[in-house]
Amino acid sequence: MKKITIFDSTLRDGAQAEGISFSVTDKIKIARELDAIGVDYIEAGNPGSNPKDLEFFRHFTGGENPLRHAKLIAFGSTRRKGISAKDDANVNALLESGADAACIFGKSWDFHVTDILGATLDENLEMIRDTIAFLKTRMSEVMFDAEHFFDGYKKNPEYALASLAAARDGGADALVLCDTNGGAFPGEIFDIVKEVAAKFDLPVGIHAHNDCEMAVANSVIAVEAGATQVQGTFTGFGERCGNANLSAIIPNLQLKKGYSCILPEQMQNLTRAARFVSEVANTSLNRRAAYVGQTAFAHKGGMHIDAVAKNPQSFEHIDPQAVGNARRTLMSEVAGRSTLLKKIQEVRPDIARNSAEMSKIMDKLKEQEHKGYQFEGAESSFALKIRRVLDDYIPLFELIKFKIISEDMASTSETENSTALVKIRVDDETVLPKSEKFIDVITAEEGNGPVAALDRALRKALEGFYHDQLAAVRLTDYKVRVLDSNDATDSRVRVLIESTDGVRKWSTVGVSANVVEASWEALMDSIKFKLIMDRDERYAVFAY
Amino acid sequence: MKKITIFDSTLRDGAQAEGISFSVTDKIKIARELDAIGVDYIEAGNPGSNPKDLEFFRHFTGGENPLRHAKLIAFGSTRRKGISAKDDANVNALLESGADAACIFGKSWDFHVTDILGATLDENLEMIRDTIAFLKTRMSEVMFDAEHFFDGYKKNPEYALASLAAARDGGADALVLCDTNGGAFPGEIFDIVKEVAAKFDLPVGIHAHNDCEMAVANSVIAVEAGATQVQGTFTGFGERCGNANLSAIIPNLQLKKGYSCILPEQMQNLTRAARFVSEVANTSLNRRAAYVGQTAFAHKGGMHIDAVAKNPQSFEHIDPQAVGNARRTLMSEVAGRSTLLKKIQEVRPDIARNSAEMSKIMDKLKEQEHKGYQFEGAESSFALKIRRVLDDYIPLFELIKFKIISEDMASTSETENSTALVKIRVDDETVLPKSEKFIDVITAEEGNGPVAALDRALRKALEGFYHDQLAAVRLTDYKVRVLDSNDATDSRVRVLIESTDGVRKWSTVGVSANVVEASWEALMDSIKFKLIMDRDERYAVFAY
Repeated sequence: MKKITIFDSTLRDGAQAEGISFSVTDKIKIARELDAIGVDYIEAGNPGSNPKDLEFFRHFTGGENPLRHAKLIAFGSTRRKGISAKDDANVNALLESGADAACIFGKSWDFHVTDILGATLDENLEMIRDTIAFLKTRMSEVMFDAEHFFDGYKKNPEYALASLAAARDGGADALVLCDTNGGAFPGEIFDIVKEVAAKFDLPVGIHAHNDCEMAVANSVIAVEAGATQVQGTFTGFGERCGNANLSAIIPNLQLKKGYSCILPEQMQNLTRAARFVSEVANTSLNRRAAYVGQTAFAHKGGMHIDAVAKNPQSFEHIDPQAVGNARRTLMSEVAGRSTLLKKIQEVRPDIARNSAEMSKIMDKLKEQEHKGYQFEGAESSFALKIRRVLDDYIPLFELIKFKIISEDMASTSETENSTALVKIRVDDETVLPKSEKFIDVITAEEGNGPVAALDRALRKALEGFYHDQLAAVRLTDYKVRVLDSNDATDSRVRVLIESTDGVRKWSTVGVSANVVEASWEALMDSIKFKLIMDRDERYAVFAY
Repeated sequence: MKKITIFDSTLRDGAQAEGISFSVTDKIKIARELDAIGVDYIEAGNPGSNPKDLEFFRHFTGGENPLRHAKLIAFGSTRRKGISAKDDANVNALLESGADAACIFGKSWDFHVTDILGATLDENLEMIRDTIAFLKTRMSEVMFDAEHFFDGYKKNPEYALASLAAARDGGADALVLCDTNGGAFPGEIFDIVKEVAAKFDLPVGIHAHNDCEMAVANSVIAVEAGATQVQGTFTGFGERCGNANLSAIIPNLQLKKGYSCILPEQMQNLTRAARFVSEVANTSLNRRAAYVGQTAFAHKGGMHIDAVAKNPQSFEHIDPQAVGNARRTLMSEVAGRSTLLKKIQEVRPDIARNSAEMSKIMDKLKEQEHKGYQFEGAESSFALKIRRVLDDYIPLFELIKFKIISEDMASTSETENSTALVKIRVDDETVLPKSEKFIDVITAEEGNGPVAALDRALRKALEGFYHDQLAAVRLTDYKVRVLDSNDATDSRVRVLIESTDGVRKWSTVGVSANVVEASWEALMDSIKFKLIMDRDERYAVFAY
């Protein structure tokens, strides 16, 4: 198996993406995760231009917290014109980082040299050679990022190749061909990489951008043309349309083409790692991301679901477990009766495919989807609605009313700026004294914001009845989606809540023009679902 | 210029995506938009399996609302085994749709025929031939979608080609090769399409899925190998990882390779169309989408911003206006002093690059970004913060306090379930009587939800002072992002509000653990910014 080295630039090129802003701790967390999954190089920003980056490097290079597998790369440019490399503050900052390896970018496109840099063509070649030669006296490995290589090559191939020769002459350990503007096509990439690989006796790398939505294919094709290093960011974010997405490239090469990128036993951690990086970067991982996305192996069409049940290979190009992802079948109108029926029969085996009950459930689903509900991510709420349709419903408890008083933070000395009053009726014979048909409870709690206050008040009201069951329940995720954002503050919102009792997780949903009302609906559903699941284990099919 | 026909399946394959649920009106809106931009074929679902789809077809085929450019395609499968095509209800439903053209999918992979369909290999070929022949007696155009063609070809090329021959023998007008599971690689696609195009004297199409994040490249490469039709969905959504993204493929082929896909004058509507389709589908268009995404031409790194100012070609592969998109330079810590300085100097030319004021602004920016603020999409809020740092601040009005009373909807007969009390101090000598230094105003309003009530109360309180200026101001967008959703209802949220006065738009931001407080902050900023921009036109640089 031919080894392809993986060079991750999430912390450098990734940080150029709109909306990304890493703290030093964020960077350390991501570096540890990338190191664990086994990428070969981790590039971080220019220690010369940013004290945060210097702090990051020092954390690892001080000797106390070394990385286990990956090599840390300091990123910088060739020296400024007119001075020597040893006198350039930015070049020296690379050494001060303590990193033992660097990646230096320099110009390969003649127009950039003359029009952007304002240097002569010869001067630029000297800057490349000189900077690398200087760094090589102090570092074990120095790579050359040939900026705009493909654009440069198409305009002036001699000069583009001369920039690589200058890097080689300076002692570069690898020549990385960059499609900096992301405009190159697969055929061009193949031909040009092939020519470079034949001409130079050094490892060749590819650094692609996604401006034509072809960065992954361009990287794969470069490897087929002879490149042995792939640069990208782990989940694809980066300046403009982003960088080549390593979480797709790694399985493409390793699972489907037999190259070796990371340790085989790490492949099943790929999905977890991609989600971790997204979390720390505070971005949402594209749901549709190849291999690692939430919907990458989700089946909705009824015919597909049936076929996958017969043989997964029918509509899955790989086994989702190979990358630590999972198959999902979605509950929706399009999924059709079969999918729905299968789940419903887990709890109510008596419901037949063409029964009146089944039609009522399908109608309810359509009506609710029309209102903005979405049960694909909130099956527990749907389970409760099924019970209601089937007259199978135990109220457990019902809202009588809530009221919330919320004020601005400056006006109160308390951090809890919202108070919620909740009145509920507990109507559940299993927890009531024999003498009572129902008991009304009114109570209040406070919290930071109306939703936190409501959550606490509801739990307090239920404490005397369901203490043991609810003690371990906590919310693990809270999401707000504005459904029709053009109506501004009158928009309907959908609130999605994820809860856990330490054993299982379940998700519930609420929809309203009022974010508090929608949150309340999802909160009620969450607790009701937990109580029902505790009584009837079969309902766990709606949890995960 | 060689014509490549564009076949859009947003309404069919797109509807298979998780989270997508179209109403008939949604489908009609999207079809009109696709027709306007000039795609050649619009495929909608199977009229036999869904009454909503039948209603959709009848809307256009009834004669009253014809499409202007595109041809409507009814989608269905080959007939069931054991009956003739004319006796198959689903095949007949295609005719009942009133559409004059259909696309029929059939099996090309032997394993699918035997293991999923449970038919013999010969029977399947007969089903393909027979179904197409029957439809061709009643429709002007029938295409064949060869499902799993590439997987089938790799396992049993003779049989895969036999399925195409059966379609040809039935009279098919085009042979569309599908990478149904999305697992094929560019090199394979090229070789196989080339062979098919040489063997069959019919137009060849490509239908790619994105499970390896290579659907766009695979489509482009298929065209280079001889395909003349590209199937995809307009913004790429579809089952699992989605379909080939037409909004990237069209400009790739037309702007960069000289093919003709849509009318040249429509190219500049591409961004608008992609955003429209996303809106109607109630999905967020991927910010990083090639060509049409919000960040596709956004520059953040200081060095890139400087270079683009010198020559856009330096970091842009095409002119953003060619697809109706726009260049943006982002304000953030990474953008560096130059970008920030340029904007600041528009309103305060006296601030120098290395001044103490500039350092204070940079520090403020870092501090606020750390708290969760993001000014890249809310520059108007940042403009206000700059004024505060520079002691250039006119209060205009300040919050003294607000209180909100909100109750559940069932408990009130009114639709306005929330009441907001607002007390503000107007401190703006230009609108106050000469005798007053400031005036306190207390008032209340109600609304559906706490934020709507606050918005109305604030406007009411300001009405006596700024009536004319605020009369035309309305909110056009309201977004809520949960920042640390693991803390559940205690999470901090970022609220982004977009406002307009009919001439300009501007965006403001608020961050708090309390969604009401965060919304209030963004609302206040929105109105303050409008008042300041009206006094000092230079501030319009922070609007758009």
